Amino acid sequence: MNLNLPNFYSIEKTDSHSQARAGILNTAHGRVLTPTFMAVGTQGAVKAVGPDDLKAVGSQIILSNTYHLYLRPGPEIIRLFGGLHRFMGWSGPILTDSGGYQVFSLSAIRKLTPEGVTFKSPYDGSQAFISPEKAVEIQNALGVDIMMCLDECTPYPATLAETEKSLNLTLDWARRCRETWDPGSGQALFGIVQGGFYPELRARAAEEIASLDFPGHALGGLALGEPAQERLLAVETARGKLPAEKPLYLMGLGTPEDLIQGVLRGADLFDCVIPTRNARNGQLITRRGRLNILNSRYKTDQNPPDPDCGCLACRSFSRSYLRHLHQNRDPLYLRLASVHNLYYYLELLAGLRQAILSGKTENYVRTFYAQNKTEID
Amino acid sequence: MNLNLPNFYSIEKTDSHSQARAGILNTAHGRVLTPTFMAVGTQGAVKAVGPDDLKAVGSQIILSNTYHLYLRPGPEIIRLFGGLHRFMGWSGPILTDSGGYQVFSLSAIRKLTPEGVTFKSPYDGSQAFISPEKAVEIQNALGVDIMMCLDECTPYPATLAETEKSLNLTLDWARRCRETWDPGSGQALFGIVQGGFYPELRARAAEEIASLDFPGHALGGLALGEPAQERLLAVETARGKLPAEKPLYLMGLGTPEDLIQGVLRGADLFDCVIPTRNARNGQLITRRGRLNILNSRYKTDQNPPDPDCGCLACRSFSRSYLRHLHQNRDPLYLRLASVHNLYYYLELLAGLRQAILSGKTENYVRTFYAQNKTEID
Repeated sequence: MNLNLPNFYSIEKTDSHSQARAGILNTAHGRVLTPTFMAVGTQGAVKAVGPDDLKAVGSQIILSNTYHLYLRPGPEIIRLFGGLHRFMGWSGPILTDSGGYQVFSLSAIRKLTPEGVTFKSPYDGSQAFISPEKAVEIQNALGVDIMMCLDECTPYPATLAETEKSLNLTLDWARRCRETWDPGSGQALFGIVQGGFYPELRARAAEEIASLDFPGHALGGLALGEPAQERLLAVETARGKLPAEKPLYLMGLGTPEDLIQGVLRGADLFDCVIPTRNARNGQLITRRGRLNILNSRYKTDQNPPDPDCGCLACRSFSRSYLRHLHQNRDPLYLRLASVHNLYYYLELLAGLRQAILSGKTENYVRTFYAQNKTEID
Repeated sequence: MNLNLPNFYSIEKTDSHSQARAGILNTAHGRVLTPTFMAVGTQGAVKAVGPDDLKAVGSQIILSNTYHLYLRPGPEIIRLFGGLHRFMGWSGPILTDSGGYQVFSLSAIRKLTPEGVTFKSPYDGSQAFISPEKAVEIQNALGVDIMMCLDECTPYPATLAETEKSLNLTLDWARRCRETWDPGSGQALFGIVQGGFYPELRARAAEEIASLDFPGHALGGLALGEPAQERLLAVETARGKLPAEKPLYLMGLGTPEDLIQGVLRGADLFDCVIPTRNARNGQLITRRGRLNILNSRYKTDQNPPDPDCGCLACRSFSRSYLRHLHQNRDPLYLRLASVHNLYYYLELLAGLRQAILSGKTENYVRTFYAQNKTEID
């Protein structure tokens, strides 16, 4: 049970044949029905997609990024607005990643010490420093609903010794984040389970993170290029050591298949750039497979991107027109395509939630796989 | 009186101190209350702005471009959709420019004969040909509500002889467009008055175009770099020779001041890339002057772009946030900024229309100039 935020998460129903569950997160900015997907608004905006569109596609909670917002516009500006919600015009719940992943993926020049990490801003080359304590303080200033601990994202592949050393740092930082966190702030703090793809390290990571009594947990270091089987094993290993009554967030996942498989293993929250980034590159996901709008076969195609979809793009526009917009590099394409893919992701999990509630999870998953086996492009 | 489309345009009220009038255009896709501004959707889309946003900013009629649509996606594709309206998802009236201006401004390699103009597509280098007859036929295929005659846009500056030669071609082409036009199509055709900045040629152009009995008229060849006084003289000269009971469209104009001055001289329709292009470049127009969102003073500015504006951007976002989006090159910036400037333009003319109807034109214009004398940036 969650001693610090006792009403933060509740389970409505758990599936009888899997670990899938339908739950409710209670945040300072409203309820979130889980499982659900968080659109990625790295720099305080989901690229090309406004808050009005986010609501229309069914977004309940979105993700932003501490690292990026810390560097630009800076927490002091967001504090002027009383937090990220008013700054970006989004009144619903927000989760921020701590920036650990970005420090390691975006900053070529960095110096890691037990104290924290010093790195060069990719925006202006200036030197910046983040520690576990500072990560929590910045997220306090952002006023987000769910904060993440600062962690080190262990690269893949990594040796057992490298993974263990990295895990030890992440666990030390998790303890320091936990001590810095003020449960009275109304902000939840999630602990992150690292441990790479060594089951004994994932298990130990999950046990130690669980012992710190966070309101929720996340699995990090996934989707770095590892085979799907290793990924699923890591999820299962960690899940087995984490209390089922707390929410679980699979960071950076993923494909629609990743979401389905994650939910079946007890995950509640997901985020990934795939739907929006792929949309911008021309790939639209539909209930009959993926299509690449650049394909010349769509030049004369009067059908909506997905005839079974109720999004803004599918209600008003054809594949032919979206292809035309893409060819002309019209920013309207980026909006419509992103809206479409996000709608798909959110509807996929909203439908799965309903299936869990009505005891039809297996059927829902079977239908999903039957529909998605085709590449229609 | 308009013999071909007798109910196409009616005047509700003419101002007692100027030629300004409030009118109604009846098109196949609905009524248009004039004076009004047409957002520019050159390639079958107003860059970054969807039809939903266009409706929200008060767009009644939009402009697209025959030249661009002819080259891409091509009229045969738009014909598949039964016209441009369904292709682009805009159910309101559409006016298309004929492409004359683009042939001369965008195609370096072109060959002009009395028959028509041969030019190289800037999209793929292929050779294309447009004649007056073909311009009307393409616009038939597009199914637009108001078609424009093919004309030659006389460059500025040009000698009297050059201007006269160019005008003669435009007048010949206007006659041929007029003969090709089928009034039974439900599409209106506007004649274009050229004649450069020689009052005798503008007057002759207006007289000859008027004699061809088009449903409406346009003035072309303006806003090419000429002084404002020459531009206003050209408008006044042409207006004096055109029947007041037909609608007048000032092509390619302009600044808010151009719109006000045009309406005072009897113009009803306007189009210009200024509001949308300037928006994309960072310039937002407000009721207190223009501001450049890139200016560092806006970094911490919590005010909306224009506190007196009711657009989507001003209702939900601050100057600080729009600047942040622009810095991050987020396409959402392009949408919000374009929406804001279009809202300003449309409200400016909707307000002027109300002022004309209530006999307060002079007062409205005075207030406009008092507010707009400041550059707040």
